[in-house]
Amino acid sequence: MNVELIPIPGVPEIRPGDDLGPILTDATRKAGIALRDGDVIVVTQKVVSKAEGRVVSEEPDGKAAWVARETRRVVARRDDLVIAETRHGFVCANAGVDASNVGGGMLALLPEDPDASAERLRATFAELAGVGVAVVITDTFGRAWRRGLVNVAIGAAGLPSLVDLRGTTDASGRTLEVTVVALADEIAAATGLVMGKAEGVPAAVVRGVRSEGPLLPASAIVRPPEEDLFRIGQGGERAT
Amino acid sequence: MNVELIPIPGVPEIRPGDDLGPILTDATRKAGIALRDGDVIVVTQKVVSKAEGRVVSEEPDGKAAWVARETRRVVARRDDLVIAETRHGFVCANAGVDASNVGGGMLALLPEDPDASAERLRATFAELAGVGVAVVITDTFGRAWRRGLVNVAIGAAGLPSLVDLRGTTDASGRTLEVTVVALADEIAAATGLVMGKAEGVPAAVVRGVRSEGPLLPASAIVRPPEEDLFRIGQGGERAT
Repeated sequence: MNVELIPIPGVPEIRPGDDLGPILTDATRKAGIALRDGDVIVVTQKVVSKAEGRVVSEEPDGKAAWVARETRRVVARRDDLVIAETRHGFVCANAGVDASNVGGGMLALLPEDPDASAERLRATFAELAGVGVAVVITDTFGRAWRRGLVNVAIGAAGLPSLVDLRGTTDASGRTLEVTVVALADEIAAATGLVMGKAEGVPAAVVRGVRSEGPLLPASAIVRPPEEDLFRIGQGGERAT
Repeated sequence: MNVELIPIPGVPEIRPGDDLGPILTDATRKAGIALRDGDVIVVTQKVVSKAEGRVVSEEPDGKAAWVARETRRVVARRDDLVIAETRHGFVCANAGVDASNVGGGMLALLPEDPDASAERLRATFAELAGVGVAVVITDTFGRAWRRGLVNVAIGAAGLPSLVDLRGTTDASGRTLEVTVVALADEIAAATGLVMGKAEGVPAAVVRGVRSEGPLLPASAIVRPPEEDLFRIGQGGERAT
């Protein structure tokens, strides 16, 4: 079955305290998008952070101070760039503190609990649109060994963020070595194709996703320290 | 504009020496998919490797020996798992050596030059289907700090694998901090939604992708050593 990526245009500028669920529901209606059961509504972190009041003034402390506050552990650093682990466990540039699309002199911080934000939005869509949808909240992350950025899921509700294929077999009957698929990250990355940074499209519908398995929030994607091969002296042997 | 992800069903089992371009063109026709200018044809590494004869017998040397041969640098290791840099510069599990979907006792290696493989496919589609398409060859990679796997682009032709947004402005007129988008990786990850590991669907069409900028192969996504913050003693300050 085909999957469709449908941008949601016409979302107004979001301000602290705005109720994002009704605003997005309204925008889908005005755009002529009739939400269906099984749709995944994808929303960028930026509008979620704005609605939740997670936007701060850069002055007088400066961006570096905000990055430090949002950082649980510095993973790597070069010049002005800090790769930091946030309190959620995400490893990303500047602990997710970002000045784009928030207006001059302001900085957006990541939502306090993006899975909870996603769950609130999911409940609102169920109530207002009368459909069972899933919700994914995205942010744009770099990768250690690959240039360029892709969207990943920092919050999710109503779908299995990870799909465990262990024990299933491939087309030739052999047990699959590839075992766990990051479904929420696939969905997030896909919407990068319709939610351009420059176009002011902060939400999209992904239609036709099939998934099996227990519902899992995006926090399930965070690799726990004991599995982290790039944390020196904690069990992993590194060779460079 | 919407983007559509269209799986290409009915691709037969691929054998060494098979000419993949005509086989995929035929499969799209039989599936009733009329290719259009601007479509992106996405193909998994596995069928490209099979067609190019990059499938080897696991015995007598064993998988570990093949992984060692395909490895340029061991990045990290724990128990049986080796995170290795391939000669292409990709950092992935087991240097891309993989036993799934190739038949018992066999191992698939990555294509020698996946960008060249993509370019050959692109030329074949232009000739046989009379359309200007782009081609992306995908493999399934893990991530250092995130659980689960996503598809990434290991080969590409006919599109900008990286899109440079530096100098453009956001909706509020502020210059974007997010600068370079990994378009080919977004496309690759998206097709994970329609090319399930277990279903034997090794190809898909991505329709409606808009992109600007100079064409760049997937090798452009490989982060050069001087930008690698996770290579000890080569300029990056690491803090753990």
